[in-house]
This record gives sequence, C-alpha cells and structure tokens, in this order.
Amino acid sequence: MRQVALVGAGMTRFGKHVDRSMKDLAREAIEGALQSAGVTTQDIEAAAVGNAVAGLITGQECIRGQVVLRELGIGGIPVINTENACASSSTAFHLAWLYVASGMYDVVLALGMEKLFHPDKQRTFEAIGSAIDLELADTFAREMSGEQSAGAGQSRSVFMDYYANLARQHMQRYDTTQEQFARIAAKNHTNGSLNPHAQYQTKRSVEDVLAAPLIADPLTRMMCSPIGDGAAAVLVTTADKARQLTTRPVYVKASTLGSSNKQAVDSPGIVPSVALKAYEQAGLGPDDVQVIEAHDATAPAELLVYEELSLCQAGEGGKLIDDGVTQLGGRCPVNPSGGLLAKGHPVGATGVAQICEIFWQLRGEAGERQVPGAKVGLTENGGGVLDGENAVASVHVFSV
Amino acid sequence: MRQVALVGAGMTRFGKHVDRSMKDLAREAIEGALQSAGVTTQDIEAAAVGNAVAGLITGQECIRGQVVLRELGIGGIPVINTENACASSSTAFHLAWLYVASGMYDVVLALGMEKLFHPDKQRTFEAIGSAIDLELADTFAREMSGEQSAGAGQSRSVFMDYYANLARQHMQRYDTTQEQFARIAAKNHTNGSLNPHAQYQTKRSVEDVLAAPLIADPLTRMMCSPIGDGAAAVLVTTADKARQLTTRPVYVKASTLGSSNKQAVDSPGIVPSVALKAYEQAGLGPDDVQVIEAHDATAPAELLVYEELSLCQAGEGGKLIDDGVTQLGGRCPVNPSGGLLAKGHPVGATGVAQICEIFWQLRGEAGERQVPGAKVGLTENGGGVLDGENAVASVHVFSV
Repeated sequence: MRQVALVGAGMTRFGKHVDRSMKDLAREAIEGALQSAGVTTQDIEAAAVGNAVAGLITGQECIRGQVVLRELGIGGIPVINTENACASSSTAFHLAWLYVASGMYDVVLALGMEKLFHPDKQRTFEAIGSAIDLELADTFAREMSGEQSAGAGQSRSVFMDYYANLARQHMQRYDTTQEQFARIAAKNHTNGSLNPHAQYQTKRSVEDVLAAPLIADPLTRMMCSPIGDGAAAVLVTTADKARQLTTRPVYVKASTLGSSNKQAVDSPGIVPSVALKAYEQAGLGPDDVQVIEAHDATAPAELLVYEELSLCQAGEGGKLIDDGVTQLGGRCPVNPSGGLLAKGHPVGATGVAQICEIFWQLRGEAGERQVPGAKVGLTENGGGVLDGENAVASVHVFSV
Repeated sequence: MRQVALVGAGMTRFGKHVDRSMKDLAREAIEGALQSAGVTTQDIEAAAVGNAVAGLITGQECIRGQVVLRELGIGGIPVINTENACASSSTAFHLAWLYVASGMYDVVLALGMEKLFHPDKQRTFEAIGSAIDLELADTFAREMSGEQSAGAGQSRSVFMDYYANLARQHMQRYDTTQEQFARIAAKNHTNGSLNPHAQYQTKRSVEDVLAAPLIADPLTRMMCSPIGDGAAAVLVTTADKARQLTTRPVYVKASTLGSSNKQAVDSPGIVPSVALKAYEQAGLGPDDVQVIEAHDATAPAELLVYEELSLCQAGEGGKLIDDGVTQLGGRCPVNPSGGLLAKGHPVGATGVAQICEIFWQLRGEAGERQVPGAKVGLTENGGGVLDGENAVASVHVFSV
C-alpha cells in the first residue's frame, strides 16, 4: 500500500442553514479544499461522498454525490456514495484513502455533507430516528430531542436514555461525577468559541453547563450535541505528489473502520479494537498522539473515548479531564475544534470535519485554538447503535 | 494490486416478496454464497453492502448493512454501505474487490439487496422517483409506471420518456426497428424461462412482445423491466486463497466505475469510457468476451449497450440481434439470466446478481441456460440519470 497524504481541507460553518441547499454547502467545502491544496476540479480522479439522512430530508435518496458534484463541474469520475450513520464521512474518507493507498487513483476527494434542518421539524426528527436500528429509533430520536425542546422553546424534558445510561453506569462503577462531564462540555464550548466554523461560539463555564436544563440525568442540554447542517471536504493524494504540492503534507498513518459484534457478550464495544488496529497500522501509541478530534455526541461519550483510545486506564477518564490533560494547553487536547458539542454535528459531515481540524492543527493553521507544535493527530468517529454499542467506529491517525 | 477471485455466489429468486424482510432476503443470498465458497461467516473480514431506496421504503435509512448482517452473526468487521442508484451493488462489489486487491483484507462479502414492494404502492413509486436527480424524478417515476399500470390492472398508459426517446433517436438515425427491440425482449424472457431465480419464467416470442400493451412508443410492457424485491451476494478473495478453496475460481480481471460528465457536450455517454477502461485493465477486448450480463432496464437499452461495449459498431446493434449473436447459442450471449427484463430489477441487488450469473456461467453451473465453454464474462450495470445519460456505470470483466 502506498503512503497517503492530505493536501487540502475546507468546510462550512456548521449550524442552521435553512436557506442553503446541500449543493451550496458542498460547494463551499470543496472550494476551500481545492484552494488550500492548490489543485482544480480537473485534478480530482475519484470521489467518495458521505451522507446519512438527506434521502429522508431532501427526498434525494440516490446518487446524492453525483447530483451535488456536477454543480461544481465534477463528473466523468468514479463517485462512491457511502453511508454509515454518524460515521458516514469518515467511511468516505477511508475509501478515498483506499483508492490512493491501493495505487488506483492519485488525487481523490472525500466529502461529507448533511442537511438536518427542514422547515417541517417533524421530518428532521423522523429522519434522525431512522438513522439507527429500527428497534432503537425511539431512543435516538429522544437523544436528539434536547434540541427539539430548545428549538421550539418548549419546557418538555425528554430523555437521552442511551448516553445517560452509559454515563450513570460509569458514575456508579468508577465514582465519576456529573461535574467531570460538565468540565468536558465547558472545555469544548470554550474551544468552540475560538473556532469560526463552530455552530456555538460562546465560552461556557462548568457552572454554565451544570445550570443548563437537565435533559436526562446526568446530562444537561450543554452536554448534548445539537442538530445542524454543513459540509466538509478534504483532498488526499500520494505522499510523493503531496510533497510536490505543498511543503506541509499531512500523512495518513492509519485508516480503520469496524462495526459492532453482536456475539461478543460483555465486549468493551467497538472503539477499543478499531483504535488498537489504528495504533498498530500507524506504528504509534496513545502516548505519541498530541491532538484528537473525538465523537463527543455527549460529554460522557468523550470521557468514555479517553479510555477506549487508551489515553488512560478504564475508570480514569474523570481524572484525565480533572488533570487538564485534554484541554488546550494540556498534554493531549481533545476536540480543540469544539467537538460535536460546540462545533456541531451535521451527521454525514462530522467525520470529514474532524479530519479538517486535524489537518489544520498539524499544519499550524488552527488560529487561536492551535495546539502548539502538534505533530501527531487522531480522529475517532462513531455511528449508529446496535446491541447497545456503537454500530460503526472509524479511527484515523495522521502525522507531519 | 493483487489478483482477486470470486469463490462464492448466492441469490434469492427476484420478484414480489411482500411477506419477506430485507434481512430474510439477504440471509438467503449470503448463505448461498457461503455454501458455494465453502467458508463460514467467521471467515468474512469485511463487507460492502449496496442498496438504493430501502431507506424510503422501510424507514431504515442508516447502517442498513450492519442491521441486516448482524442477523447472520456477521459483526466486528468493516461494513461499508454504498449507494449508486441502479448500480449500487456493482459499486459495493467494486469496493469489495478494492479491499482484496489493495492487500487490506483477504475475504470480503459484497451484498446487494432491495425491497421495492410496499403494501402502500404510492410509497414504492415515490421512492423510485427519488432514485435519480430530482429534476428528472418525474421521468423515472413514469419509466417504472408500466408495472404500476400492470399491477393495478389499470388501462392508464404512462410514458417511459427517457428510454423511449433514446429508442426513437436510434430508430431515426440507424433504421433500427421496433421488432429488433422486441427480439431482445423475447430473447431475455426466453432466457428467463430457463432461470429458477428469474421473476418472469415464461417463454415469449417476438409476437408476444409486440402484442403487449404499448407503454411509450416504441416500448411495450415486455420491453420494460419490472419492480421487484431480492438480494444477491458474492464472496471475493485473493487468487491464491481461491485456489485453496476451489478448483474453479473465477478471476476478476477488471473492476471499473465511472459517473457522467456534464461538461462533455454531445459525449457518447458514460458506458463507452468505463468499458474501455475495463478492457484495458483486463488486457482483453470485446472479441474475447463470451458471455455478458448487461443493464437492460428496457430492451432498447440492451441494444445501445451492444454498441457501447463495442460488440459492434455504432448503429449496428439491430443487426447484432438479428444475426443471433447475443442469443443463447450465438457468439456472445447477452443476459442469459433473463436480464433485468425477465430476471427482474430489485435496484440495489441487480449489480451483484449480474456477477452471480457470470460466476455460474464461467464455472459451468448455469443449468439449462449455460453458455457452453464460456471462459470470459462481462457485467455492465448503469444507474441513475443526470444530464440525459446514465449517472453511473460500472463494468467488470471475469475469466477462468
């Protein structure tokens, strides 16, 4: 397999873009990626496009990628439309990487895009509910309903059972506290305040997070990711070509994808095994990683990921955030972009957006939220729920 | 890139399976593929799953592959859900091939599946309408509406403008006749009568086809593919491992995918360029191919594909069918399975089902419809419509 490098990245600000089409959002992201790479649409030899639920929201179920890309004059090339729930576009990135690593194509676009807001709110919630196994659709719909309550100004308190349950289990088993979850949320909202692409750009304190309305004990609204629209794009090429294009290529050291295993009773979930595979592929360990974008669909999810990525031992996630290890200025900042909690979570765009952030961080282009001198970065993106765990996990490792 | 081989294939009969779930259909296809390969679910290292519109029909928009595969105990592996309209599962096969060819995995499943029939017929037609660019949804919905009329027993004549237009252009330009289209349909229905997996298994004459109700001049109902449900699965592995598993591996000589190019005014469509790439990759030409499964969404589409695959010169498709070249017993039988016209066209299952047929043909396992001694086979699968041509085309070449 050939060594692969990132040479360009672009994304829209995440948020409520009811007045913009998915084509329009994708155009902004792709133009940003092309510009930063110094290449044109004519250089793109293939594309992988991740999207989760736009079929239900927009009615365009099929060939979503081709429909969007032709607006930019990108055609005549292989276009793979892929879906893996919240991990849709890290899956697209994995395929773009595979196309280049295998030797098949030299310059490949990975695009993630999503429209979740719809004038008819019910349509949005039904679509999100369908994002996972039907048996669990109800749970997931409720998970997202914090935003529904917030958006509609209703006082209705609806429960995010799945993540709340995981959080309560961790609290019982390891004496983890609600304040520790709040610390994660405050960190990410504060990071988001430094990121012009973030949906929420307001600095929040631990007290602010704890004072927000309770969605499902111990989760307050600020511990939950919002609904959003957006697009993100990156360009990958061979290491050789990358060095011709830029003095600052970002190398892809590992690209892994996995799905849950029903048969593994009491298994620790899918993330640890996918992460282990990524560390092995990269020839690097958790101590080598200096910046991470993780799938903080809720604040407790980020705490669990600390342990699943072996940043600390099981049960020590709370201590890690208390010690400031994962905040800007700490040994390994997690979600300097603001993460899903503050940057936002337009489902199909999230995976590639994480990769955009690591690209900027490793090139020293992350502005006020820059992790100084970061040389190794990692992204962790999860999707869907099956059998009480993430259905999909994708971990990527990058270095300069 | 490593040489890749097919070692197993399985499919359901295509047709109206209102009483069976997509999981159930997929199970039958996968079990068939596993059995013929002599491997178990535990041997599968990754899976690519093609599906087009089940999100709109079943409400399960996301992680469709994981939801289906876990029923068979297949988990803990990468699962890529992919969509490319009618070419969804040839795209999935392309990814399965890429995983093995690149060296990443050794045994990979490609699955295509579709549920188009829904108790609420309107839902089926809306879903199919969304299968392509929104601007053309109306055209496509009408394309499929021959079945609607037939199913509902209505006398309403609705027009399949897109294919009818292509057919009329060909008739005007090259003196192609309606009878030649009818000859293709009669051939495919007659082939279907020899295929236990076919939706329609009734032998038809040219007269039968011409006497069927006119859908859109020159298309009669028997010249149009029906709506159907079904699943198809194949297993790919390395050439080395294939030779350990079987004395009759089927080698993948070329795997190509392309999409339409808006900017190419008066371009000959996407199929010729994708086919050319496939011939180059395979190191073989059209004269070497002895059996073909082609995307006969309508009878004229098959005639056009003769020319697009360079089986004959432009304008000579009619002569090719008249000369019997593409019928069983001819030099290069096309659609011995019955094709989309008779075997059926459950959108997301079609691409892999074509590959199943070539697998059986090249192994001499095609029963009454066997092409004697066939050593080289080809599949051509198109999907969607953009800018007046197929949005996607995928061509694969196989040999023993």
